[in-house]
Amino acid sequence: MSQIETDWSFVGCGKVTPAGFSFAGISAGLKNSNKKDLALILTPEKSICSGLFTQSTVRASCIDICEKRIKKSLGFIRAILINSGQANACTGDFGMEHTLIATQEVAKLLGIKEEEVLMCSTGVIGVPIEIKELVNNLPDLVNELKKNNFQNAAQAILTTDLVEKAISIETLINGRKVTISGFAKGSGMIYPNMATMLAFVTCDVGVEKGEWDKMISIAVNKSFNAISVDGETSTNDAFIGMNAGNKIDKKFLPKIQSGLDIVCQRLAKNIARDGEGANCLIEVLVKGTNNNADAIKMAKFICNSSLVKTAIHGCDPNWGRIISAAGNSGVDFNLDMVDLYIGEVQILKKGKLNNYDSAKVINYMRTRMNGKYLVEDIVSITLNLNFGKAKGMAWGCDLSKKYIEINSEYTT
Amino acid sequence: MSQIETDWSFVGCGKVTPAGFSFAGISAGLKNSNKKDLALILTPEKSICSGLFTQSTVRASCIDICEKRIKKSLGFIRAILINSGQANACTGDFGMEHTLIATQEVAKLLGIKEEEVLMCSTGVIGVPIEIKELVNNLPDLVNELKKNNFQNAAQAILTTDLVEKAISIETLINGRKVTISGFAKGSGMIYPNMATMLAFVTCDVGVEKGEWDKMISIAVNKSFNAISVDGETSTNDAFIGMNAGNKIDKKFLPKIQSGLDIVCQRLAKNIARDGEGANCLIEVLVKGTNNNADAIKMAKFICNSSLVKTAIHGCDPNWGRIISAAGNSGVDFNLDMVDLYIGEVQILKKGKLNNYDSAKVINYMRTRMNGKYLVEDIVSITLNLNFGKAKGMAWGCDLSKKYIEINSEYTT
Repeated sequence: MSQIETDWSFVGCGKVTPAGFSFAGISAGLKNSNKKDLALILTPEKSICSGLFTQSTVRASCIDICEKRIKKSLGFIRAILINSGQANACTGDFGMEHTLIATQEVAKLLGIKEEEVLMCSTGVIGVPIEIKELVNNLPDLVNELKKNNFQNAAQAILTTDLVEKAISIETLINGRKVTISGFAKGSGMIYPNMATMLAFVTCDVGVEKGEWDKMISIAVNKSFNAISVDGETSTNDAFIGMNAGNKIDKKFLPKIQSGLDIVCQRLAKNIARDGEGANCLIEVLVKGTNNNADAIKMAKFICNSSLVKTAIHGCDPNWGRIISAAGNSGVDFNLDMVDLYIGEVQILKKGKLNNYDSAKVINYMRTRMNGKYLVEDIVSITLNLNFGKAKGMAWGCDLSKKYIEINSEYTT
Repeated sequence: MSQIETDWSFVGCGKVTPAGFSFAGISAGLKNSNKKDLALILTPEKSICSGLFTQSTVRASCIDICEKRIKKSLGFIRAILINSGQANACTGDFGMEHTLIATQEVAKLLGIKEEEVLMCSTGVIGVPIEIKELVNNLPDLVNELKKNNFQNAAQAILTTDLVEKAISIETLINGRKVTISGFAKGSGMIYPNMATMLAFVTCDVGVEKGEWDKMISIAVNKSFNAISVDGETSTNDAFIGMNAGNKIDKKFLPKIQSGLDIVCQRLAKNIARDGEGANCLIEVLVKGTNNNADAIKMAKFICNSSLVKTAIHGCDPNWGRIISAAGNSGVDFNLDMVDLYIGEVQILKKGKLNNYDSAKVINYMRTRMNGKYLVEDIVSITLNLNFGKAKGMAWGCDLSKKYIEINSEYTT
């Protein structure tokens, strides 16, 4: 990981974003507050767009539109409109109607085809979108489109997120400056009735559609698909990756892939860290499996276990719960082969209790529950099955009373 | 359901238990308290035993022994020893060693074969069993074996359960009195490091092994396999069903099945109601699926959703979360066909919001969160997919701050 990261530099995403893309974020009065709630991304001509969407049977109409238009246009998408406040899911005929009105209007204002416009919504499920307010504010939104308005867009898609999730990285490839930027929202199914995760990544190197689909899929499986806050997939989950610009020699694509991986993982970890009521990020590394998918599956199971999450919240090095969660993952292993670490401390050695310093582990956990909001507050768990050569990671967060409070004391 | 129940009468399980079975429950000093912690069931000669065990990859040695011996003896099992306090899982070589010592000793005292004795353990994972205390107390335990000590046995298998879970029902079949009794422990993965669910059902009608296997499986799928407190399967889960006595005309087997269903469902509901920190039982009925398995699967998904559980805890008729959980179950359906009820109140009519009285629904939920410990405190959710003709139920409980407290503030 550190090897990869040194190839890319983190840069201020307020100033540095991929060449050719412009962004806007304004308040259109969709929320009860004055917070920004409407965002727009304009991509350069001939840019390529790929998307991955919620697997839930119940999904918002805007998601159907996204899939349909990306497929029909072969990825030649020019604009993405995103609103927060109303998820526009489970709203009957309003769902499709409002999505069509909004995207039609954006197309008209930008002088592009309706089929080149996507829409993503996030907010309360079952409540129709404030379509009049939205449409009335579209001219202002289009006027705001600027390369440097990236952070405004990132802010406009948030709902109850405590922090903005935006990142830009850059590198030099064969003398050419390359930038990848992304922003996201969500922390699991984060708010009563709310739809969850949205992420948008832009890149200023041209990559063909087929190749881009694959690269996006690889990056998302190792990041957004490897986090869990409460195990709930929402009706509106969407990841959209866009690229534009001159193509690059094929031999440099692995470097672009590593950049995509960094941006997606960082955004995904930010989402897990911003899980409702969370005090730390849980990072689980599973090694020694037959394949990477098994490793990620087991790591995700451990991250998603209520008993592991509450144990970590209580700074209790409760290894029995970790092993029990691993046992429920459906991945086959032999307990007598397992090495288990919490932080740097080895708890199990080939399935047997190591004579470890319990106070040291508790202290390690306590320093991570410091009440500060830091992505660096990581409780790390490593499980080596000593079986195969594959590995994988997943991320989650501790489960606190605050989670219950947020989700049971909210009234619609 | 009510039709079935009228065929069987609930009777005091302190006095009425199936003919030929005897029970014992004592304190052997395995727990830090003086509470009972060691139980024994002695079955009549030629009784038939079937078992269903945890599907976790990590499981206690005693579970391996149970499966092996039931298979080898073709179900001719004579005794089951159960201890609480230590789960005897993840204890390395101690696991098998202690199970063998204990069952050997029971066989000797009862004058039966070691292969006819099963053992189940529940308690802290990773801690070796207090084998000396256990063995020293076996003679006392055997001395206590009585038809009327059923409740002592039921008490001895509890860990942090708040209430005892025991039930006896009887009926007349063709002039013959038939009794089915069962007891269970657990409320999900209910205690830090604890292994979870144990259930033992006895019946005084002889049923052949093959038939009994099927009947047990049917009953368990509609009961224990349809409850969830926190979605965690433990290392020691076990269900054991025993029958003994004269056979009965095959045409009466459906009546025995209905009795088994009643006992298993009642015990399972008791477990869900006794979920950690729970204030009510959540009962979800899914109708209109293509098959019963799909209905149970979706009902279980809804019961297991943290967001549904917290919404119910907050008395919030948050139908979006229910539909979202249904959408994640993997069962295909068309939202435009769905009818949704909370209690008697219809929330969705063919996928569209019904003009319902929100205050009435909130009040319905509030009266169930009354802080009393009643199985009758049921928040009922009904989802009709209006697709096929099958249906299924599942049970869970609300998720409260108390759950977090119990699982994070415990220190090993």
